[in-house]
Amino acid sequence: MKVSQTFIPTLREVPADAVIVSHRLMFRSGLIRRLGNGLFVYLPLGLRSFRKVEQIIREEMDAIGSLEIKPTVVVPGELWKESGRWDSMGEALLRVKNRLGHDFVVSPTAEESFTALLRDDLFSYRQLPLSLYQINTKYRDEIRPRYGVMRGREFVMKDAYTFDIDEEGLDKAYQAMGRAYRRIFKRCALTVISVKADSGAMGGSGSEEFMVESEIGDNTLILCKGTGSQNCNFSANVEKAECKNDFTPCLSAAEAKAAAAATAPVEKVDTPGVKTIEELCAFLKTGAANSAGSKTFIKTLIYKAVNVELDLADAPGCNSLKQHSAERGGVKVYPEAFFAVLIRGDLDVNEAKLAACLKAAEVSLACEADVERLTGAPVGFAGPVGLKNLPVIADFTVTAINDGVTGALAKDLHYKHTAYGRDFEAWKTADLRTVKSGDLCALCGGELYEKKGNELGHIFKLGYKYSTPMNIRFLDENGKSQIPIMGSYGIGLDRTMASVIEEHNDENGIIWPITVAPYHVIIVPIKYDGEMKAAADKLYGELEQSGIEVLLDDRDERPGVKFKDADLIGIPYRVVVGDKNLAGETPKVEIKGRREKENRLVELSKAAAELTEKIRRELAELNA
Amino acid sequence: MKVSQTFIPTLREVPADAVIVSHRLMFRSGLIRRLGNGLFVYLPLGLRSFRKVEQIIREEMDAIGSLEIKPTVVVPGELWKESGRWDSMGEALLRVKNRLGHDFVVSPTAEESFTALLRDDLFSYRQLPLSLYQINTKYRDEIRPRYGVMRGREFVMKDAYTFDIDEEGLDKAYQAMGRAYRRIFKRCALTVISVKADSGAMGGSGSEEFMVESEIGDNTLILCKGTGSQNCNFSANVEKAECKNDFTPCLSAAEAKAAAAATAPVEKVDTPGVKTIEELCAFLKTGAANSAGSKTFIKTLIYKAVNVELDLADAPGCNSLKQHSAERGGVKVYPEAFFAVLIRGDLDVNEAKLAACLKAAEVSLACEADVERLTGAPVGFAGPVGLKNLPVIADFTVTAINDGVTGALAKDLHYKHTAYGRDFEAWKTADLRTVKSGDLCALCGGELYEKKGNELGHIFKLGYKYSTPMNIRFLDENGKSQIPIMGSYGIGLDRTMASVIEEHNDENGIIWPITVAPYHVIIVPIKYDGEMKAAADKLYGELEQSGIEVLLDDRDERPGVKFKDADLIGIPYRVVVGDKNLAGETPKVEIKGRREKENRLVELSKAAAELTEKIRRELAELNA
Repeated sequence: MKVSQTFIPTLREVPADAVIVSHRLMFRSGLIRRLGNGLFVYLPLGLRSFRKVEQIIREEMDAIGSLEIKPTVVVPGELWKESGRWDSMGEALLRVKNRLGHDFVVSPTAEESFTALLRDDLFSYRQLPLSLYQINTKYRDEIRPRYGVMRGREFVMKDAYTFDIDEEGLDKAYQAMGRAYRRIFKRCALTVISVKADSGAMGGSGSEEFMVESEIGDNTLILCKGTGSQNCNFSANVEKAECKNDFTPCLSAAEAKAAAAATAPVEKVDTPGVKTIEELCAFLKTGAANSAGSKTFIKTLIYKAVNVELDLADAPGCNSLKQHSAERGGVKVYPEAFFAVLIRGDLDVNEAKLAACLKAAEVSLACEADVERLTGAPVGFAGPVGLKNLPVIADFTVTAINDGVTGALAKDLHYKHTAYGRDFEAWKTADLRTVKSGDLCALCGGELYEKKGNELGHIFKLGYKYSTPMNIRFLDENGKSQIPIMGSYGIGLDRTMASVIEEHNDENGIIWPITVAPYHVIIVPIKYDGEMKAAADKLYGELEQSGIEVLLDDRDERPGVKFKDADLIGIPYRVVVGDKNLAGETPKVEIKGRREKENRLVELSKAAAELTEKIRRELAELNA
Repeated sequence: MKVSQTFIPTLREVPADAVIVSHRLMFRSGLIRRLGNGLFVYLPLGLRSFRKVEQIIREEMDAIGSLEIKPTVVVPGELWKESGRWDSMGEALLRVKNRLGHDFVVSPTAEESFTALLRDDLFSYRQLPLSLYQINTKYRDEIRPRYGVMRGREFVMKDAYTFDIDEEGLDKAYQAMGRAYRRIFKRCALTVISVKADSGAMGGSGSEEFMVESEIGDNTLILCKGTGSQNCNFSANVEKAECKNDFTPCLSAAEAKAAAAATAPVEKVDTPGVKTIEELCAFLKTGAANSAGSKTFIKTLIYKAVNVELDLADAPGCNSLKQHSAERGGVKVYPEAFFAVLIRGDLDVNEAKLAACLKAAEVSLACEADVERLTGAPVGFAGPVGLKNLPVIADFTVTAINDGVTGALAKDLHYKHTAYGRDFEAWKTADLRTVKSGDLCALCGGELYEKKGNELGHIFKLGYKYSTPMNIRFLDENGKSQIPIMGSYGIGLDRTMASVIEEHNDENGIIWPITVAPYHVIIVPIKYDGEMKAAADKLYGELEQSGIEVLLDDRDERPGVKFKDADLIGIPYRVVVGDKNLAGETPKVEIKGRREKENRLVELSKAAAELTEKIRRELAELNA
């Protein structure tokens, strides 16, 4: 392609709202333009790279036997009502009413469509396993779209859904998908961090996120430095991360009681005006909060939880709680319930873990009025001793405290010498702590650290979450009606492409990996005229002939402008055709890899063959 | 691909709502499924053919130097407000409000997006000409989606837009696009009827529609039998079709007056209870209406027109009409105006022609109250003689009537011996007649006939319709700011694919042309076992090796079922592998083209080579 025949509007200036490098470079190099907030147009150069990412994903899906289909982007709202997500999805779901008043959804994801599609055509176990995917436009009504295509409103996603007879089948499909994802990212030359929902320590996994490190990432990752034992590659989303217990292993109430035998009896302390852990540390002179100083403190937080699925029949204070029967699947939920959550003074409660433990849709700290009503004391003086009308959920760390300080359910009063098992018990114990830098790895004991990450892909065992409410069935080998078990697997194409640029660039522009470069080679004649034109055209023809994708900068611009553009748009190989190098007995051209500092002089007659060989080798390596 | 590894849910029964053959066959052969009203999912087999149609279109666009880009499907409503289509587009435009209350459009077409995109990046005439296209999802909120993907709500369209310096440039772009379209349809083995907006007789053309014949077509086409002169291929949409005048050439008022010299003076006739042309014919005993009998009658119809751009300053009765200044482009319109439209009694007014003549957004027959108010008589007695307060628009045929019958602006009264030019004049004369079967071709004098057609593609010279209101500009060679002239070019992919099936099928199923067949060959072993399995696998491997796309029906089904499915899904070549034919000294297989009645026995060892050669030749022929 000649540059004059295509449309590559490069820019010197940087758009004001472009704060990350991929956003800046995609604009400057004419890959994308903005059509509206969070809405981007891929221009010819950008679309070429986009299609290559798409093709890599398609090939890897096809390779594991997943079948491509094309559902619609606009989907009947009815399907989303069946699954329950019409209500639960929140405002990011773009809902549309058409002229007849019918409800539609501009799809953000497609569990409903795929399930609905199959329920009419799935009859027999002999049709399973089945793995289907689409590469299609999606929409998420982001309030604050940012970072270019990294967090746009409209985007393209590959989403796959598997249908299996049983868990063993699902696990096979899930493993195959994981392998395909790893290959996709390798082929795109992306360094991804794989984050499993559950650590290997707990056995099995139903979810794996593929993250790239990013200063503007939505996710906080907890990673292991591997200092404890070799080759530990523990990684987790902070929402779910566990760490090694730095306390005596979690005790039962009876064991804890025994351990507290030597502890002095509980004693009330006057703590006038003291409300926070910090103030308490200062008052009791134990040293700074969030350090060893507060390790004998028991923080008691009152949480409100919404739509709790956990059975609270035997939970203190819950016997009069009303249970709603949800419309779908017969699941019963408590619309609202309160809990006293205990954690060691130097730690923080991880609300995602708490919500998971309670099987709640959402948890949040109770308001002041609720705290006073439930504990009989102002905020800051809650404690488990004598607390009757609330279920107590204790983090594992609390079970190891046999001489602790905690609120005494009255203004300006705390208890000293409190012991778990002796002075109070928990209705439930769980891992609720937020892991942070410096905690120790549960696998190898090494030190953990934090990184920000962006999710590119996610593979997930859905189980029966959609197949049950949407009533999809097949007859098993014995003629019995069964519900298939599902998995769901997504990759964002726009984000993957932007992440390639985030990882591969320098101060002059993009440095495309050969597999997703819009073109492999750019030929830059110093002047597109006379012998230089003839040589450039010849080389262009030869390279095209061998299947190499070439740009020829035939513009009437100064060489400096052309070099700058070539670097900016990041074509892996640049060939400069100048009259001086052509003049000798054996005409030569200058070849430079985009990462290299120096040109190399190569005979014109050998340039095409050399480049072809290099490029084929690089492609083969990345695609291997 | 082995049939057991893919997902081809064929059906014996026909869905109740599938009234056209492509809809029936696409369902039965498992190409598509329905997700909602007018919303269809392409299944793996369907998507393969769909992608082939897409690729053919892409190749032909690329071949004429059009550049592919990818705008969004959801587009800011602001852009549509700028162009004026937010208001003018009607209810087929799916409008969406997002959670922040901002307006969006789910694109039905993309003139706005492309113009908006370019206006920030177009600077110089040196960037022109520019031809850009997308192949993307579109949405039209059809009230009654029908006929499967032929008239769905969501569909995929290739739409291209060209930007040129001047009309000469636009014409070049337009011609290239036309050639590309003809190649696309040829490669898809589609017989299309090209329909130009203006007949060649009038010189030049700014619009060409590519139609396929279809009993359920939206369009009525007027075609020439070519009986008048040889090789006449006149074709036109009835909305714009002209025909040969079967009357003395259109007369000026003065000429008509002279011609009427011998006519008796106007005479009132009592016509009690007579209102329609039919009744009048019966009453005056002139013979049947819509025949020669009514050729001396002048029908007078009162029309209401909306948003009239035509200048009515000197039109009778219009001096007090208010003119709105439209927001965009400074165009002034009359929001509402009434006209008396005259046409010969045996003919019908073509409202599309009338709207074009008045430059009106819409025309419709005036309501009874308006007719009475404007003519002073009940409906049925309007006439031009003595009509003062309305502009009279006369079809050319009326100018040749020098002894006619017409309403006398009073109940139960008509005039006889009315003559154009003598007893009344028109404010404007125009071609307003609806051409119909039996009329004569304007080009060759041959007989015209009607066909129903569906539009697959449309190429159209937009002119400055979008570039002016959306204010896109460039500097010309002299540094002067200019507005580019635009063209717009669309093809519906779903419709093209369905039309291929409409044209290529028989009672057993689809007969795919080789270029868009989902697979080239289907191998059907009588039983996928033993020697038959070995032979089928060998052939499968050999064909795949030579780049032929093969399905292998490895299912444990009766041969009859497999043969029926192979015919239904319409794979161009079927190879049956049976033990009897394998048993001989030289093992043989049966090859049958989908159109052929009989099998041919071919040696197993030569089958792959023979099929490969046949298929390559067929592909080359269609793609030539």
